[in-house]
Amino acid sequence: TRKHRIAVIPGDGIGKETTPEGLRVLDAAARRFGFELDLTHYDWSCETYVQTGKMMPDDGMDKLKDSDSIFLGAVGWPGVPDHVSLWGLLIPIRRQFDQYVSLRPCKLLPGSKSPLANRGPEDIDFYVVRENTEGEYSSVGGRMFPGTDREFASQQSILTRIGCDRIMKYAFELAMTRKRRKVTSATKSNGITFTMPYWDERFAEMAKNYPEVTTDQFHIDILCAHFVQHPDWFDVVVGSNLFGDILSDLGPAVAGSIGIAASANINPEKTYPSMFEPVHGSAPDIAGKFIANPIGQIWSGAMMLEHLGEAEAAACIVSTIEKLLAEGGPRTRDMGGQAGTVDVGKAIADAV
Amino acid sequence: TRKHRIAVIPGDGIGKETTPEGLRVLDAAARRFGFELDLTHYDWSCETYVQTGKMMPDDGMDKLKDSDSIFLGAVGWPGVPDHVSLWGLLIPIRRQFDQYVSLRPCKLLPGSKSPLANRGPEDIDFYVVRENTEGEYSSVGGRMFPGTDREFASQQSILTRIGCDRIMKYAFELAMTRKRRKVTSATKSNGITFTMPYWDERFAEMAKNYPEVTTDQFHIDILCAHFVQHPDWFDVVVGSNLFGDILSDLGPAVAGSIGIAASANINPEKTYPSMFEPVHGSAPDIAGKFIANPIGQIWSGAMMLEHLGEAEAAACIVSTIEKLLAEGGPRTRDMGGQAGTVDVGKAIADAV
Ligand SMILES: CC(C)[C@H](C(=O)O)[C@@H](O)C(=O)O
Ligand SMILES: CC(C)[C@H](C(=O)O)[C@@H](O)C(=O)O
Repeated sequence: TRKHRIAVIPGDGIGKETTPEGLRVLDAAARRFGFELDLTHYDWSCETYVQTGKMMPDDGMDKLKDSDSIFLGAVGWPGVPDHVSLWGLLIPIRRQFDQYVSLRPCKLLPGSKSPLANRGPEDIDFYVVRENTEGEYSSVGGRMFPGTDREFASQQSILTRIGCDRIMKYAFELAMTRKRRKVTSATKSNGITFTMPYWDERFAEMAKNYPEVTTDQFHIDILCAHFVQHPDWFDVVVGSNLFGDILSDLGPAVAGSIGIAASANINPEKTYPSMFEPVHGSAPDIAGKFIANPIGQIWSGAMMLEHLGEAEAAACIVSTIEKLLAEGGPRTRDMGGQAGTVDVGKAIADAV
Repeated sequence: TRKHRIAVIPGDGIGKETTPEGLRVLDAAARRFGFELDLTHYDWSCETYVQTGKMMPDDGMDKLKDSDSIFLGAVGWPGVPDHVSLWGLLIPIRRQFDQYVSLRPCKLLPGSKSPLANRGPEDIDFYVVRENTEGEYSSVGGRMFPGTDREFASQQSILTRIGCDRIMKYAFELAMTRKRRKVTSATKSNGITFTMPYWDERFAEMAKNYPEVTTDQFHIDILCAHFVQHPDWFDVVVGSNLFGDILSDLGPAVAGSIGIAASANINPEKTYPSMFEPVHGSAPDIAGKFIANPIGQIWSGAMMLEHLGEAEAAACIVSTIEKLLAEGGPRTRDMGGQAGTVDVGKAIADAV
């Protein structure tokens, strides 16, 4: 049988509660579709940091390297600053494993509620493809004249040809697999006049290779407005690290699914493992109560199976989620129900 | 009588159609409230550029310097690249006249329609205060290794202490004049780890001076989501040049007023003239037909009067707009009516 090695990092807060439900559903899918999952658990988290001064051990990346995929819960906890927790675990994995694609579906699921008036599942169904390694999240910067009136902070945004071309290629290839075959580019070349015109040039260049794909581009300000006013315009939206980050929260918010959105951090060449995680965070306010919604985690598990070549199993999980929501199966409080984290996980696992 | 010197730049496209309506209403307000407007018209635009190679004459800024305010329509036209049109007219005025505050109201006007379900005028009424001179829109950047695989573009984002402190002070002072007294800061210090933590520090520092003001802060990704899900949370939102740009399009989009949103580019010290312009652009698709909605221009005129010390006249124009919309007065196509640009302008001017 096919066997996939999965590194499991529940992380912090509700990550510890949603990850087991993700695994429960993955396990059900494995049994039904005849593959095996070889799981290795890592308890790296902000607790690890408090105990050891590190988010993961020195050989952490080595440990992960031989897995086929990483299944992550959430990272971050009050008291540990983000630049420690995120930059000690999440960001190094994304960068050192060259997971240069962050892929995030924006989908209005049947039975879930969009904050928009008069929008149904047929109106919102697109992907945000986010560059995940460079751009505005750079490591070049600093401060000058500290403590004086002349003080300033500076940070470079870097767009490389390699970085632009590979993320755009991924977006166009994804569009080719879809019915509408459309790619929208997020830019701001009218205001950010060195990096963003370069982004536009590379986009125009890449588009030449895909004559079957329709393209358009919008500045990020009006693009955000269009997400709200015309979510039906979009099929595949490609953006830089920052713009993709913004759009992949705004898209699910518009679809009413931000609490259940999934995301994949992909190294398409499979030189390194890819990582799958829900969009939501560790949610300290509800952690420990087992009331968190596990659907984002479970949906991320489906994206992981897709990446591992188990397309049928992946599709089955997604359609099971959709069916459960449409038919009014158990739901957690954020979706107006009474069910706990485990109830929802079990219901989906059973149906799979 | 009080006299205000106004430089009028209709600019391109529908700017040429909406500016006269703005002036019509300003003129009506001047007569009713007993002040004089001394207008000087400048036809600087993309046409000027095509004829002369420049968006404005060499002594353009000198010409504008002695006015009390600048009343602008829209800048930009197909065939003239943005870095020419915007960076030849709009951006130099903002920067050389140190209009470091971009102030943009986000308001659900009675009778206008938000794309959100179940939201009324009481739910959306806040200001975006945008830093308007530095940050991500910087002039430091370039390219290396052109034409090779190693090619990259780089651009620095710069946040100065002076720049941060003065925009934050403006936001807090504005909040002090409002009922809720709340300031929300837009950040992304978990991803953009040199400039944005500095922004957070300056925000925390400034907040100490305003114990009566409640504060919170969100990363820009989730903040955009909150604009859609909870627009009622916000009172005054302060952001960097880019984040403010994004939020001040998203806010009006959420309020259903992006076509009619107003904006002010303010030099609070009045060392230089301030500039008032609608948020919409030159709209080449409908230009020349006199069907554009002039409300954004007229509302910008009201913001100008407020800045010039004519608070009563300003309030009268805004409430006239609100009344007209609520009572089903003439409206342009974008608002579901049949009226032309001039009809709406006349109706508001008459009512003032
Ligand atoms: C045209 C562009 C440079 C400008 C900006 O981003 O400042 C516009 O979007 C605005 O908000 O006034
Ligand atoms: C936590 C943060 C650094 C991260 C990001 O901006 O990449 C998060 O917002 C995300 O989208 O995964």
